[in-house]
Amino acid sequence: MKNPAAGNFFEDFELGQTIVHATPRTVTTGDVSTFTALYGPRFAVQSSDKFAQDIGYPVAPIPDDLVFHIVIGKTVPDVSRNAIANLGYAEFRFLKPVYPGDTLAATSEVIGIKQNSSGKNGVVYVRTTGTNQAGEPALQFARWVMVNKRNLDAPAPETVIPDLDDHVTPDTIGGALPSLDMNHYDFDLAGSPLRWDDFEIGQKINHFDGQTIEEAEHQMATRLFQNTARVHFNQHIEGQGRFGRRLVYGGHIISIARNLQFNGLSNAFHWAALNGAAHVAPSFAGDTIYAWSEILDKAELDGRDDIGALRVRLFGVKDCDPADFPGVKEDGKYEDSVVLDFDCWLVMPR
Amino acid sequence: MKNPAAGNFFEDFELGQTIVHATPRTVTTGDVSTFTALYGPRFAVQSSDKFAQDIGYPVAPIPDDLVFHIVIGKTVPDVSRNAIANLGYAEFRFLKPVYPGDTLAATSEVIGIKQNSSGKNGVVYVRTTGTNQAGEPALQFARWVMVNKRNLDAPAPETVIPDLDDHVTPDTIGGALPSLDMNHYDFDLAGSPLRWDDFEIGQKINHFDGQTIEEAEHQMATRLFQNTARVHFNQHIEGQGRFGRRLVYGGHIISIARNLQFNGLSNAFHWAALNGAAHVAPSFAGDTIYAWSEILDKAELDGRDDIGALRVRLFGVKDCDPADFPGVKEDGKYEDSVVLDFDCWLVMPR
Amino acid sequence: MKNPAAGNFFEDFELGQTIVHATPRTVTTGDVSTFTALYGPRFAVQSSDKFAQDIGYPVAPIPDDLVFHIVIGKTVPDVSRNAIANLGYAEFRFLKPVYPGDTLAATSEVIGIKQNSSGKNGVVYVRTTGTNQAGEPALQFARWVMVNKRNLDAPAPETVIPDLDDHVTPDTIGGALPSLDMNHYDFDLAGSPLRWDDFEIGQKINHFDGQTIEEAEHQMATRLFQNTARVHFNQHIEGQGRFGRRLVYGGHIISIARNLQFNGLSNAFHWAALNGAAHVAPSFAGDTIYAWSEILDKAELDGRDDIGALRVRLFGVKDCDPADFPGVKEDGKYEDSVVLDFDCWLVMPR
Repeated sequence: MKNPAAGNFFEDFELGQTIVHATPRTVTTGDVSTFTALYGPRFAVQSSDKFAQDIGYPVAPIPDDLVFHIVIGKTVPDVSRNAIANLGYAEFRFLKPVYPGDTLAATSEVIGIKQNSSGKNGVVYVRTTGTNQAGEPALQFARWVMVNKRNLDAPAPETVIPDLDDHVTPDTIGGALPSLDMNHYDFDLAGSPLRWDDFEIGQKINHFDGQTIEEAEHQMATRLFQNTARVHFNQHIEGQGRFGRRLVYGGHIISIARNLQFNGLSNAFHWAALNGAAHVAPSFAGDTIYAWSEILDKAELDGRDDIGALRVRLFGVKDCDPADFPGVKEDGKYEDSVVLDFDCWLVMPR
Repeated sequence: MKNPAAGNFFEDFELGQTIVHATPRTVTTGDVSTFTALYGPRFAVQSSDKFAQDIGYPVAPIPDDLVFHIVIGKTVPDVSRNAIANLGYAEFRFLKPVYPGDTLAATSEVIGIKQNSSGKNGVVYVRTTGTNQAGEPALQFARWVMVNKRNLDAPAPETVIPDLDDHVTPDTIGGALPSLDMNHYDFDLAGSPLRWDDFEIGQKINHFDGQTIEEAEHQMATRLFQNTARVHFNQHIEGQGRFGRRLVYGGHIISIARNLQFNGLSNAFHWAALNGAAHVAPSFAGDTIYAWSEILDKAELDGRDDIGALRVRLFGVKDCDPADFPGVKEDGKYEDSVVLDFDCWLVMPR
Repeated sequence: MKNPAAGNFFEDFELGQTIVHATPRTVTTGDVSTFTALYGPRFAVQSSDKFAQDIGYPVAPIPDDLVFHIVIGKTVPDVSRNAIANLGYAEFRFLKPVYPGDTLAATSEVIGIKQNSSGKNGVVYVRTTGTNQAGEPALQFARWVMVNKRNLDAPAPETVIPDLDDHVTPDTIGGALPSLDMNHYDFDLAGSPLRWDDFEIGQKINHFDGQTIEEAEHQMATRLFQNTARVHFNQHIEGQGRFGRRLVYGGHIISIARNLQFNGLSNAFHWAALNGAAHVAPSFAGDTIYAWSEILDKAELDGRDDIGALRVRLFGVKDCDPADFPGVKEDGKYEDSVVLDFDCWLVMPR
């Protein structure tokens, strides 16, 4: 009898297959508190019911990155438990706000598959949808991972590579924004007078602070997200592995960096979409993570003159001064200190 | 004036005495979140209000092990603050479901007492009842501990050893299960198609994953349970003690093992009773805990054809491969790697 | 463009200036749970909705020290991000109870300013008010900090030193106590029979237990409070600094000591006012914190014969036996082990 906990290998995936992921999760104000202890978020909309209500939310929404982590966590046992690498994301959009008390579930469809030339593994493309208790999509994204084969003799499937957009176009974002009355957005309480109009394409922003990772922190975060990827929790195995230590969940770096972004982008309260992300290098306990952002693009949002979107390339870097903006070198390779390259659309008041 | 925080010694206990334990506790969704960060539980019933409601719960119940830890924590200052060893449990049953917002309190009755031949300590037997805000018992168990005497000259009490059942009989369990409509139990969302009928007596199940313990984690867990046993928190004292380090609360191992049990027993959503438990060896920060289970017995539940009970012997082991099922050796002694031997009744759909 | 995250320097403060601090925060039962995991509070009023309701609260109030940390956390980016030292507190009173769901915001008024003779820094006095969502003050205190100048050539402001009370007089405390029916206060459930009448001026109380600090714990606490002071989180910088390690937030020591106070002062459920506090020495991960209290004074509360106030000097000490009551030496200097000297008013039943 196969233990479902063993996870899927490359030959277990089939084009068109739909996977219902286990363990729906009711997200609560308790989760927001644990999340706050782990990342120290300070965006006013998600921190204060009153602030959120003043601009038209029924209550403070769940931080977008917490929604992301919970949805991705659900997919791990089925999609990436035996993954060698997370290769990419595309067509990643938040579609509905999530509030305390909502229950998130996730399904994935296999939209592409390609065995690698080595015959030992292959790339699986899935489109994952996180839904609320009413079945409404709250988050959707395509993702591709490299997965080992269990049985090297299993035949290669026909290669299908999905046609995915290079980036999310701004006319398709904002689905997770309810109708808002931004006239009541209080910039003093939000922590900065800097609005959409104050930022320029090409501008680089140093997010100043650094956060040193502890084993207990990244383990608690990853369990909070019910993410079971083994490399994060097991020193007995990982101590004998490639790095000699537990690997930090890549999403932990995303949330450290995203929440450091408050320093300089205090009003960028909503992460609306992700154009792409690379976990450039692994992170470990003891690393100090810094972040900086570059404004790649600006876009108005359909029919709204109160809010706008910034396309932001957020770099997570470690053990270095982010004031130097370490990113990509002239030869196209990343600087040694870069751990995360995260290209997203953020929404902020105009 | 005696500081109540000093706790009771052997001669402070008297047969028939009732102890009202301090600090009732309202259990909240916040506690569930902290618990999730500490143990990563994935049983769908406790994780999702919607899943729970679909089968007839008013809302997701509090995880049984969280209820247990809170009740046992209340008893520590009175019963086991000066205990040398936790010797056993019996007649341990969950009697009512506990929901967020319920307030747990605990009382214990001294049901047995026996001074040891050394004259330095003795065994105290108590029956502890955890009640909700309506005074209804939610959990009840007998427990015996070895406690030091304060004054070696104190006279020995008359020995009374209570008559405790060898194990909990299945006809007495299920009190904490409300009337359920298991037709709406979704096995895809629950994470496994394996039901009660799929398991056989004698079957061994490897729970695969390992969790490395961090000092911050076991301390936070033990404080969450308002358990004040000194050995878990004080490196200044324990550094000079027998082990040179802080001892991990035995219940921390129980919850690590219980929640690893999801891998292979995903549908065993309710821990209904405990037949006995031994903390076989101490655990410390840095240990990696694994778990495996053996099915000892199967039982139908009174008048219910939708759910059944499995008697499961759950072993917690450390720094070894659980696929080898390390347990009891031929000479009746435990394998070196065993830290927990936990004989319980679990309920799952048929 | 100045990044608001850089914080204020000495010359940015002006007498009479009002600072609206960023990021209002809705306090939830989730925060209470995280706080419980960090400090293990056991005061019954804050732990149990039922206990609180029995004496007249609508629901269990938020622990006072959690309210304090959240309010002080809001002031850090504006007031103390570039502070060299926290010099003192005065006229510190809790004014309204705070309940789960309440939203805290904070403003500060600059009430004094004095450049130091070195010309490199100065002292800034602020009066901070934490308000709830209705704008009602929940906590108010004066505080003074030493802050660096950014530009040494900036002219010195006119010196104004505010006239602050030496201590809070008992006739001005109790604002955060609703009308209570103390006849229903259950001393068994509260953990001790010792009431206000049982304590004497001059009495010293050993709070017994010790708590060893972990990096993950103080970082999670400090982030929970949205306190961004850089020295607590960044080993990359602090490893090269004066101490070679991250400094623990002084408030972390306050809450460890305050919650150890349960051992001996179990009924002192409300911290009503602070007369003054000194962070005598820095604390670091690995330190084991103990606490002891001396009763400095006793006071009746205006028109109430059911509760009374104790003026308590709470010492936090490290890596030593608190039974020795290490405090102030004959020469007026602190014993080496003292880290916190905290002079407060506590309220308890008579």
